[in-house]
Amino acid sequence: MSDEKNQKRPYRPRPVSGFPEMLPEVRLAELSFIDDIRKAFESFGFASIETPAVEEIEVLLSKGETDKEIYILNRLQADENDKDARLGLHYDLTVPLARYVAQHFGELTFPFKRYQIQKVWRGERPQEGRFREFTQCDIDVINIDHLPLQFDAEMPAIGYDIMRRRNIPDIVIKLSNRKILAGFMEGLGTEKAGNAIRIIDKLGKLPASEIGNLLRAECGMNDAAIAKCIDLADIRTQGTGFAARVRALGISNPTLEAGIDELASVMDMLRELPEGAIEADLCIARGFDYYTGTVYEGKFTSYPDYPTILAGGRYDDLAGSFINKKLPGVGISIGLSRMFPKLQQEGRLAIGRQCPTDILVIAPSAERQGLALATSRVLRARGFNVELFHMPGKLDRQLKYANKKSIPFVWFPPFEDGLAHEVKNMGTGQQEKADPATWEMPNG
Amino acid sequence: MSDEKNQKRPYRPRPVSGFPEMLPEVRLAELSFIDDIRKAFESFGFASIETPAVEEIEVLLSKGETDKEIYILNRLQADENDKDARLGLHYDLTVPLARYVAQHFGELTFPFKRYQIQKVWRGERPQEGRFREFTQCDIDVINIDHLPLQFDAEMPAIGYDIMRRRNIPDIVIKLSNRKILAGFMEGLGTEKAGNAIRIIDKLGKLPASEIGNLLRAECGMNDAAIAKCIDLADIRTQGTGFAARVRALGISNPTLEAGIDELASVMDMLRELPEGAIEADLCIARGFDYYTGTVYEGKFTSYPDYPTILAGGRYDDLAGSFINKKLPGVGISIGLSRMFPKLQQEGRLAIGRQCPTDILVIAPSAERQGLALATSRVLRARGFNVELFHMPGKLDRQLKYANKKSIPFVWFPPFEDGLAHEVKNMGTGQQEKADPATWEMPNG
Repeated sequence: MSDEKNQKRPYRPRPVSGFPEMLPEVRLAELSFIDDIRKAFESFGFASIETPAVEEIEVLLSKGETDKEIYILNRLQADENDKDARLGLHYDLTVPLARYVAQHFGELTFPFKRYQIQKVWRGERPQEGRFREFTQCDIDVINIDHLPLQFDAEMPAIGYDIMRRRNIPDIVIKLSNRKILAGFMEGLGTEKAGNAIRIIDKLGKLPASEIGNLLRAECGMNDAAIAKCIDLADIRTQGTGFAARVRALGISNPTLEAGIDELASVMDMLRELPEGAIEADLCIARGFDYYTGTVYEGKFTSYPDYPTILAGGRYDDLAGSFINKKLPGVGISIGLSRMFPKLQQEGRLAIGRQCPTDILVIAPSAERQGLALATSRVLRARGFNVELFHMPGKLDRQLKYANKKSIPFVWFPPFEDGLAHEVKNMGTGQQEKADPATWEMPNG
Repeated sequence: MSDEKNQKRPYRPRPVSGFPEMLPEVRLAELSFIDDIRKAFESFGFASIETPAVEEIEVLLSKGETDKEIYILNRLQADENDKDARLGLHYDLTVPLARYVAQHFGELTFPFKRYQIQKVWRGERPQEGRFREFTQCDIDVINIDHLPLQFDAEMPAIGYDIMRRRNIPDIVIKLSNRKILAGFMEGLGTEKAGNAIRIIDKLGKLPASEIGNLLRAECGMNDAAIAKCIDLADIRTQGTGFAARVRALGISNPTLEAGIDELASVMDMLRELPEGAIEADLCIARGFDYYTGTVYEGKFTSYPDYPTILAGGRYDDLAGSFINKKLPGVGISIGLSRMFPKLQQEGRLAIGRQCPTDILVIAPSAERQGLALATSRVLRARGFNVELFHMPGKLDRQLKYANKKSIPFVWFPPFEDGLAHEVKNMGTGQQEKADPATWEMPNG
């Protein structure tokens, strides 16, 4: 290396891999998406909470999720009093929720219904739709001892409501129930039921023959059992028709029956949703070990190869584990950071405005700046988002600024005494007299 | 230690010092506060951005702020490919903004007006009003080459607007201009002007005699010079009267004159604010070295001993330093995590509701659950936040739930065919017939 290269060059800002950031016009679209998610969550009466970005390592490892590539914190200037690093950034919002409910148990009202919209961090290798920092939008309900199935049905209803608000009809939320696969395996006499479920969860990603080979090799299944598993995992119905088809496979087991009944109840409670919005799909299992009943997986129907955009399920034993109580929960996570870049790439987001400004007030001249300032104040007090241009004078420059930032209206305070205020609609080009105290913004 | 004590006991969740979290009823109040801050920021046309929680260490250290106790990240399971930790959590939002503007320079519209509401982290020892994780609400404008003073006046106007929205009239935003102190020192012939400014900034925290001793010991000032400094730093006026009082001290210097003119202009532009909302206070300097002109410091007038709740200023050389351009900026930071606990402690926050629910729909019986569900849907589609109680039956239990969560209205779907819907105002106890398709919520 030459001496020149070794010389310290000034630092030039650069993106950090896996930590995306947005230009203002994209962020504006994201914020509007988040606002709609929040409105949907609140419309069902769920309360916001936030937990710290960090948890103690014991909490993060309590589910045994050591493959999540946890980031731990150290102070840059650690002194001798520093203990070993015992704090790490959370990698999801479910484990913090479980800890929160256990810690504040006596201060919460149950069923505890909360939503949480926060960043989470995973030190994984970045790929398409996978980042090291991303936003999760979670909604969960946790109750003491017993949690009615009504909530299992409410989760996909809320998920669908968000999509409806965002005008994204091309999604399907697939439902299953862990007890169906588990009971079916039990009924078949499979020894390694957990392994088998994880293998069947891959149906759709791997061909059926490959699934068969794995079940044979890893779970010691015979051809008849494999055929029944594939038949089961192949069942996909719009309503409750799945139940008869499962029973027709001739496996009898109480856990299986419980799973069928639960899923049928949940599907029935969701019958008001538009056709195609939900379906029972018995190959869905979800990776997390803590799911014990209903599971969800949402996908774009228009982009079938694109990964899951929302997911969740019921966990009967997660939250209570810290304090030795029975605290069953169910929840769903909207994968905003998964969904958003795809919608952006497909041109399905309204991206254009760089700012929330409704009206740019023109600064006609230094002498009339006071009038322009007063005009901005009147419009702002009436609820509009208003910028006053910062350099009185040159009109061209002011209109160019409005155009560049896609500000929809430009306001002209009178250039001389006796003249009227005027407002220009930058979309239509129309300009008309207006009174700042009474003007109403046209719709659209 | 006994063997028993050495046994691994199950982890019990506990708070982590410096990383506070809120119960839902407190978080609801915080969220409403944040919403108002955001509305105020947007009403002036500022755009939201978010930067990652992390920056490269070079960025974090670029201002030489090594006393901020930066947290650096390491992966819990680092492999041999891991480079030395080169990412740290941001400790403010100004340095990330400067890096953002430099990195995306060609893609932004100037003047670039952004707000940013995010968590920041400092590994300091927690004290009253100081946390290791806290929320900052920053608003800044950065322009190329020249930034009009209009923006210096806009920052405290926005700060005051937030307080007005939150019904907090008991604050004062103190303004000064760095050039006044710097030019005054220059005019006095002080050699260690920087030191002197830092000492004078402590006036109000230390007695004047102590300030005098420090100026004598650390800056070699004589008694006459010290007296002039104290006289200067003592100047506090509601309007532009400070200018005459500074000039009466008889120090002549071009930087001083520029500072007086700038501050007078800014104070003049703010004359529409209510009396007492702002004042020129010439002892204000702010700690950060990067401030070059206007500086702000906001405090509760009702709690004069409580620390600064908003602060900021103009920095002409910060953002451009990464890319060798002139990018002057001015901004203000609302110390939400500083302000909020004090307002809570003083009982000045509306804390009570545990959830955003407007209406709890009663589930009269299992048979009529479908009707109750349909009623919830109608009310929700009309924009209300609606919960349907999860266990049909026992009315007492349902009303108790509404009471505990302070849900303001309870809706009774007809218990028999032919009866009408009824709604109960939980505040007044009044119950009346109502139609879910047309009912309007009473004000208040």
